[in-house]
Amino acid sequence: MVVRIGVLGCGRIGQVHGRTIKRIDNARLVAVSDAVPRAAETLAAELQVEVRQTEAILTATDIDAVIIGTPTDTHFDLIHGAAQAGKAIFCEKPVDMSVDNIRACIEVVKATGVPFLTAFNRRFDPNFATLRRRIQAGDIGAVELVIITSRDPAPPPISYIERSGGLFRDMMIHDFDMARFLMREEFTRLHAVGSALVDPAIAIAGDIDTAAVTLTTASGRICQISNSRRAAYGYDQRIEVHGEKGMLRAENQLETTVEFATDSGFARPPAQHFFLERYEAAYFAEIQAFVSAIVHKTPPDPGIHDGLQAQILADTAALSLASGQPVDL
Amino acid sequence: MVVRIGVLGCGRIGQVHGRTIKRIDNARLVAVSDAVPRAAETLAAELQVEVRQTEAILTATDIDAVIIGTPTDTHFDLIHGAAQAGKAIFCEKPVDMSVDNIRACIEVVKATGVPFLTAFNRRFDPNFATLRRRIQAGDIGAVELVIITSRDPAPPPISYIERSGGLFRDMMIHDFDMARFLMREEFTRLHAVGSALVDPAIAIAGDIDTAAVTLTTASGRICQISNSRRAAYGYDQRIEVHGEKGMLRAENQLETTVEFATDSGFARPPAQHFFLERYEAAYFAEIQAFVSAIVHKTPPDPGIHDGLQAQILADTAALSLASGQPVDL
Amino acid sequence: MVVRIGVLGCGRIGQVHGRTIKRIDNARLVAVSDAVPRAAETLAAELQVEVRQTEAILTATDIDAVIIGTPTDTHFDLIHGAAQAGKAIFCEKPVDMSVDNIRACIEVVKATGVPFLTAFNRRFDPNFATLRRRIQAGDIGAVELVIITSRDPAPPPISYIERSGGLFRDMMIHDFDMARFLMREEFTRLHAVGSALVDPAIAIAGDIDTAAVTLTTASGRICQISNSRRAAYGYDQRIEVHGEKGMLRAENQLETTVEFATDSGFARPPAQHFFLERYEAAYFAEIQAFVSAIVHKTPPDPGIHDGLQAQILADTAALSLASGQPVDL
Amino acid sequence: MVVRIGVLGCGRIGQVHGRTIKRIDNARLVAVSDAVPRAAETLAAELQVEVRQTEAILTATDIDAVIIGTPTDTHFDLIHGAAQAGKAIFCEKPVDMSVDNIRACIEVVKATGVPFLTAFNRRFDPNFATLRRRIQAGDIGAVELVIITSRDPAPPPISYIERSGGLFRDMMIHDFDMARFLMREEFTRLHAVGSALVDPAIAIAGDIDTAAVTLTTASGRICQISNSRRAAYGYDQRIEVHGEKGMLRAENQLETTVEFATDSGFARPPAQHFFLERYEAAYFAEIQAFVSAIVHKTPPDPGIHDGLQAQILADTAALSLASGQPVDL
Repeated sequence: MVVRIGVLGCGRIGQVHGRTIKRIDNARLVAVSDAVPRAAETLAAELQVEVRQTEAILTATDIDAVIIGTPTDTHFDLIHGAAQAGKAIFCEKPVDMSVDNIRACIEVVKATGVPFLTAFNRRFDPNFATLRRRIQAGDIGAVELVIITSRDPAPPPISYIERSGGLFRDMMIHDFDMARFLMREEFTRLHAVGSALVDPAIAIAGDIDTAAVTLTTASGRICQISNSRRAAYGYDQRIEVHGEKGMLRAENQLETTVEFATDSGFARPPAQHFFLERYEAAYFAEIQAFVSAIVHKTPPDPGIHDGLQAQILADTAALSLASGQPVDL
Repeated sequence: MVVRIGVLGCGRIGQVHGRTIKRIDNARLVAVSDAVPRAAETLAAELQVEVRQTEAILTATDIDAVIIGTPTDTHFDLIHGAAQAGKAIFCEKPVDMSVDNIRACIEVVKATGVPFLTAFNRRFDPNFATLRRRIQAGDIGAVELVIITSRDPAPPPISYIERSGGLFRDMMIHDFDMARFLMREEFTRLHAVGSALVDPAIAIAGDIDTAAVTLTTASGRICQISNSRRAAYGYDQRIEVHGEKGMLRAENQLETTVEFATDSGFARPPAQHFFLERYEAAYFAEIQAFVSAIVHKTPPDPGIHDGLQAQILADTAALSLASGQPVDL
Repeated sequence: MVVRIGVLGCGRIGQVHGRTIKRIDNARLVAVSDAVPRAAETLAAELQVEVRQTEAILTATDIDAVIIGTPTDTHFDLIHGAAQAGKAIFCEKPVDMSVDNIRACIEVVKATGVPFLTAFNRRFDPNFATLRRRIQAGDIGAVELVIITSRDPAPPPISYIERSGGLFRDMMIHDFDMARFLMREEFTRLHAVGSALVDPAIAIAGDIDTAAVTLTTASGRICQISNSRRAAYGYDQRIEVHGEKGMLRAENQLETTVEFATDSGFARPPAQHFFLERYEAAYFAEIQAFVSAIVHKTPPDPGIHDGLQAQILADTAALSLASGQPVDL
Repeated sequence: MVVRIGVLGCGRIGQVHGRTIKRIDNARLVAVSDAVPRAAETLAAELQVEVRQTEAILTATDIDAVIIGTPTDTHFDLIHGAAQAGKAIFCEKPVDMSVDNIRACIEVVKATGVPFLTAFNRRFDPNFATLRRRIQAGDIGAVELVIITSRDPAPPPISYIERSGGLFRDMMIHDFDMARFLMREEFTRLHAVGSALVDPAIAIAGDIDTAAVTLTTASGRICQISNSRRAAYGYDQRIEVHGEKGMLRAENQLETTVEFATDSGFARPPAQHFFLERYEAAYFAEIQAFVSAIVHKTPPDPGIHDGLQAQILADTAALSLASGQPVDL
């Protein structure tokens, strides 16, 4: 079976997914759409597929699945439209900024029974996927402590910050999902601290750029997350997981394997800076997993429920930061 | 000038200090004492020095300084005795389990003007000392986030746990001091979580074996500490410090530099397991610093005030854990 | 300008190049050919291009360049045919097993003026290309010593060994080219030793599986190469270059960045085993460089002369091994 | 039993050995001697032992063993004197510059039956000793290839070079011994190349500063050694050993474990520069092994035969370099 796909939204992430689909054997990119016609036309020309209206893609009889890569505030309607048209749905995170809206989306997805994948790309990174696989295999025994370090190379423009929903919903949401992915026991309590240390304009915009969150589970397991909007040495994406038998950790991917030794010592290159480069393999595996789930009629993973849980954790972190107190989940 | 030293307490740490003194040029070990005569005699024989009564050492005219390596509950009296006799004091941590008692010791130390070093050995580790030196040199700019990972290879006997004052006062106190050493701005708020995941007997003894603490400063800088009483791969002692210009991190010291490559991949040996081996260089530098401070008439660093601050942080962590709430300092 | 390309030979390497061309903006794959029609048809179907006869590709007016990925003994005729038809030529290594034949190819390439790239893929590996770039930038000053370690994960079948031309021409030829690429001064003397330690059948086939070669230049610079047909821990591809100001070294690419710590120590995964995976980025950059050279009318690099020089070094190594003596070049 | 020791020669290496003896339980330093009385007096004062004449130490009834740390040209007479007086002998490398003289020393050592240790300190380095132990344990199966990289931080003064016996006898002799230690099969053929690339004054002094040697055994196993008198990044001491089941390698010991990450990437400190620091643990283990061999009446290892074999390899390398040809051993 070949899965026929339409891509909604031809921005940076839509382009990545479109190009990826072209490289996957049992998938076929049929059409793309974008509110900006020129964006759709450019991608369509590159990939030699049709431009259609978004509505037309949702209802097309020659399309099995849609990739939703449009702005977050359009997700709700597109999910409803696609689900009601019986299309499998691949939706960029966050599913919606409102937990209530996500719950409404869950209803329609349940009611229609369409496959739904929440695009937490990092789960598909070969390094982090290896962590999960080895934890499940029992290599470190019961997990006791997860430490996640996630730092962007540099802050986005203030205009982006202002519309982002804040660091917890825009950036740490990935780490909340990763924490759940690796801990495999739901968190019951969360404590957040944060400050604007990188750029005072971020504080003026009402956001923070440096944050630390502690999560605990009912059985006493702990997760520490730290985020910063700045890391001189590249896109810092590291995780360590401690269990009774040992530790698993995933280090950064550096630009090359070259080491330069001088009288100053031994220098290796920065971590890969650009998220599309850093997670290139993850983006590929993510589309593969979505297509494979449709072909094999298994539920895509992570599903819409995972999108909800991560959003709840992000909202709760914002609440904890505002109140200065831990919050029960 | 040669500093003439008496060692009080001939247990494991007293032995280390005694042997170290023998290797330091401008120091001379004169006598040792211990409540258990045989312990003192054994060490004295090895090091070819006299055994004296503790009281006699405190008042000896041929002794300039004392190393207090006796049980914690004797520190208060020995500090008072030594200070009143005008001896320079090197005191193992914790100075005392009671913050009030430490404050009383500060009074007598101030009143007598004797040099006092609180033996936070990790400050003298060449790796951690390098972190501090480079932070002070401005290599990473203003510090934003400190992450300290500190894990013992295996829990001590339950009998030890019962008398230890608890994980925060016995184990994390080192990390509290390290956090202050590296952050160089006092912490104003602390939040602790913890559980007994390693051994249920530890819970029965009223303690925890796994903990995570978040500290913040008035200017919004953050420190995350994690502790565990268990680390299969050795004595895990790692620190990373993030600043505006980059990161400094100190990795573990492994047993050898040998890597073994097979079809399973590349294997390196465990981290050094034993704290006396891991911190051998630190114990040496610590005594050197004490002797040097006496010779050059500069105040030893860390002083008794640092012993107080670390104890306050440990007490506060215990309070935060008990209440489930952050505590202002 | 879009370069229109035909791929001759649809075996493993032809497939790689065909797929790569599809991903390059200013290149277009027009047709493929293979002596085995089914091989050509399968690749053509996958890539949605035409199957043509090899002869037809060589003379086609809608094709600008050919990729020669056929068996080595066909290269001579194909190079002549393509050159006389004015096609740009991308030729897999070795250009030919006979140095005389390569010289004849050089004549026709010169006479016709067609662009020619000898496909030493490792030059395009981002790690090794970084070594070269930094050497040229003067980062380590004058090069003094190059050490190349190159080990296959496991020996090929004996049937392959028998037709391979021997380890020096089949395997170390890559390292000879790399040595020239990094040293940038021609070698004047070569000494080779070798043995069959991996598999006695290799000795029976008249070949070796373990070898060490020392090369020197007129100015006294040295290169040490070692090869083995076996490396339990993956495809071992490492280089270090020493100069007056320091060292540059390229380490292996491991399967993931995951480290697993237990009471045995710290384990990382094997090096990538499969050459197509290890050199994936190199194969891409190689085709890009070929296309770019055609578009910009600059001579492709490495050229046919580099193919000749590497072959001469391989022949000389075989001679040195047979005689037990160093050989002047 | 306590082994009573006299140290002959109070230069840099004699001081190291003297201080080490003071730290070893079942050894006692009795006296030191030096042709320069002040040198002996200074060390004796520091270690609180007697100064005696060399001759008096050799014949003393209260001394069991001597450490010969005097200039090489005095070794011959001292070995004879000590052996005839029944003293155990610890002799710095090289035993003698002349192979014939070493053979004569072997005769007297054999005749008198005194224990003799040739001080190839690197065998006692914990990293290299681990390589040997694991090879012997069969961890990598039969050894196929040994690669030794040995580079000094900077060349010694020309005056030292002139009296050194040349790079092979002064510097690579350590690597020849290491090659034998790890290969555990004698070498049968050797080929050397070398140049003066670091300093033309070294060429004028008739020596080289950069060299590469290839050694082979009767069964076809190979060792590659490279040496340089210069390494900007510290004292470069690395070994890798390949066997049928995998590889063991020993990396450099860096100054600290601190990594510094900036926009330039990840920087670690240089390798330990000073040989006394780099091999501190080895010097300690070496004296321990000597004392232990005497106490347990087992032959010290490496013995005088190992001193002979390494010298033969060094002489042969000089011959190969001069002739430009491999030489059979």
